[in-house]
Amino acid sequence: VTHTALGEGREFDRVRSIALALGDRATGLGDDCALLTPPEGLLAVSTDVSVEAVHFRLEWMDYKEIGWRAAAAALSDLAAEGAEPAGLLAAVVVPASATDAQLTALVSGVGAAGDSVGAPVIGGDLSSGGCWSIAVTVLGWTARPVGRSGARPGDGLWVTGALGGARAALAAWRRGDEPLPEARSAFVRPEPRVDAGRWLAAHGARAMIDLSDGLGGDAPHLAAASGVLLDLTLDALPLAPAAADEARRAGMPPETFAAEGGEDYELLAALPPAFAEADRLEFERECGLALNRIGAVGAGHGVRAHLRGVPVTLTGYRHFS
Amino acid sequence: VTHTALGEGREFDRVRSIALALGDRATGLGDDCALLTPPEGLLAVSTDVSVEAVHFRLEWMDYKEIGWRAAAAALSDLAAEGAEPAGLLAAVVVPASATDAQLTALVSGVGAAGDSVGAPVIGGDLSSGGCWSIAVTVLGWTARPVGRSGARPGDGLWVTGALGGARAALAAWRRGDEPLPEARSAFVRPEPRVDAGRWLAAHGARAMIDLSDGLGGDAPHLAAASGVLLDLTLDALPLAPAAADEARRAGMPPETFAAEGGEDYELLAALPPAFAEADRLEFERECGLALNRIGAVGAGHGVRAHLRGVPVTLTGYRHFS
Repeated sequence: VTHTALGEGREFDRVRSIALALGDRATGLGDDCALLTPPEGLLAVSTDVSVEAVHFRLEWMDYKEIGWRAAAAALSDLAAEGAEPAGLLAAVVVPASATDAQLTALVSGVGAAGDSVGAPVIGGDLSSGGCWSIAVTVLGWTARPVGRSGARPGDGLWVTGALGGARAALAAWRRGDEPLPEARSAFVRPEPRVDAGRWLAAHGARAMIDLSDGLGGDAPHLAAASGVLLDLTLDALPLAPAAADEARRAGMPPETFAAEGGEDYELLAALPPAFAEADRLEFERECGLALNRIGAVGAGHGVRAHLRGVPVTLTGYRHFS
Repeated sequence: VTHTALGEGREFDRVRSIALALGDRATGLGDDCALLTPPEGLLAVSTDVSVEAVHFRLEWMDYKEIGWRAAAAALSDLAAEGAEPAGLLAAVVVPASATDAQLTALVSGVGAAGDSVGAPVIGGDLSSGGCWSIAVTVLGWTARPVGRSGARPGDGLWVTGALGGARAALAAWRRGDEPLPEARSAFVRPEPRVDAGRWLAAHGARAMIDLSDGLGGDAPHLAAASGVLLDLTLDALPLAPAAADEARRAGMPPETFAAEGGEDYELLAALPPAFAEADRLEFERECGLALNRIGAVGAGHGVRAHLRGVPVTLTGYRHFS
C-alpha cells in the first residue's frame, strides 16, 4: 500500500492515522485525486450520505458500525446495478467534541465494508461540523449495467434475503429495548448484495433496485422507471425472524411490517419469465442467500399489493428525522 | 437530457425540481448509479465537503454561490491532477428550515460550476440534517496524471492567477464590512483552474497542487510528497488587488497575508528548468490567466520562504471553525 506523504498539521495527522488504521483497505490516500485504470465496460458511480440523528443514533451503534453502515448503504447501489466495486471515497464531517479514536473507528468501519466486497478506500475529505455525517461515493465497473427501467410485463419479481429485520431493530430501540441480535445486525451491519447483484445481472435481470426505503418505498421507483405495474403478493415475502414479534407489538401483519420497513438493503429484481426454480436454487447455492418470487410485472402503472387476497396500500419508509 | 422516472414523495419531488432546474447541466439522475464510458486513460476522482459555518456563512453568500463554491473546490482537485472533468455528484444535507427554492438555487450553483468546465451533474443524494453541507465528488479522465510527488531539484515553482483575494473578503466580512467586489468574487465564485491544469500537464508539469489551504498550507504537502525542499521568494507572489489594503489593516506584509490565505484555488506547479519566458507567455495567452515563477525546488525537505531577503515562517490557512 502506498500513500502520498503529507505535510504537518492536525488534519493531516488524522489522515495519517486513518491510513495506518485502514492498512491494506486503503490505497493512494493523500493526493488530490484517486486514480483508477478502467477495464472494459462502464464506470458506475453513486453517492450516499448518512447523517447523525437522521440515519443513525450514537446510542445505538458504535463508530465502526456507523462507518460500515454508511459504506454498505452506498455499496448497495453498486449491487443494484450489477457492478463490480472498484473503490470508495468518504467525506466525513466530524463534531468538535469527537476523539481521533472515534474517527478512526468510523473510517475503519467504512474500510471493512469496502473490503468485504473488494473496494479499497481510495480517497476522502475531513471537515469539522455540528454533527457526524458521512458521504460515501462508490465506484465500480460493469459490462452490462442493470438499471431500473428494463422490467417488462410477464417478468417475475424476486427479492434477496429477508425483510423487516432493520425495522425490528429500530422498533426495539425506540421502545427502549435492546433489539434481538439478528435484528440489530441487520440494521448496523447490512451486507451489500454485490455478489447477488452480479449473479442476477449475469442471469438476465432486466431491472433491479436496492430496498433502502423498503419495498413500499422503492417498488414505485422501479415501476415508474420501467413504465409498468408491479403486482406484489405479500404472502410470499421472506420475513426476518424478529419482524414477526415486532409486527405483533405494532398490531400489524408481519408482511406489511416487513414491506414498509426500510434499511434492509436487499435487492428487488425483475427477472425474465424463463427464470425457473432450478435457477433459484443455483442462486441460493452460489450466493448463500435466499431468493424468493414475490410478484409479477404487468401492464399498467404503479404498485399493487395484496395479502391473503385483500388489497394493501403500502407506504415507504422515511428516516426518523 | 434523460433522467430515470421516480415514484411519488417529497424527496423525489425535490429531485425532479432539481433535474428541471439543472436542465442540460445534469444527465441520468434518478437511477442507482451514474454510468460513464471510459475513454483512453485513467479515471481521476476526488471528494470535497463544504459545511455551513466552517467553509461558508449564509450571511455572506447566496445559495447559488454556496453551491458554485462547493463544486469549484472539488473541481479544483481535478485541475491539480491535469484531468479533464467528466461529471460530478453532490450529496446535500438540508436543514429542516430550508425551502425548496434554497435547495434548488444551491444545486443550480453546483451545476453552473460543473457546466463551466464541462462536467454535468450525474448523481447525488439528499438528506435532512442540522445544517447545510455539500459533499461534491468529481470524476475526470487523464492520460498523464500529475501528482504531488514528481518535483525534482532544479524545477521552477510557478503559481497561476493571484493570491490573497479570498482572504481579503473573509477579513472584510469578519470586520462587518462588505468586501470589495473583486475580493468577494474570489471567495464566492472561485474558478477551478481546469484549463490551466491541463495546459501545464501537457507542457511537462512534474507536480501540482491546488492552493485550498494557501501556499503556506499546501506547499509543505508538495514538498513532503516529492521529498524535496521548496524555496519560495515571496517578493514574486502575484497579489490580488484587495490583499494589499487588508494586509495593511492586519499590520502584515501583503505577500505574507497572501501566502497564508486559503481558498484561492490557484495552482502551484513544479515545472522543469527548461520552462522559459516564451512558455509563460504562451500559457497566459492560451489560458487568459497569469503565471508567475515564485521559487525553485532544491534538495532537502520542507519549505523555506523569504521576503526582501529575510526568512519567513509561513503557516497554513485554517477554516474559520
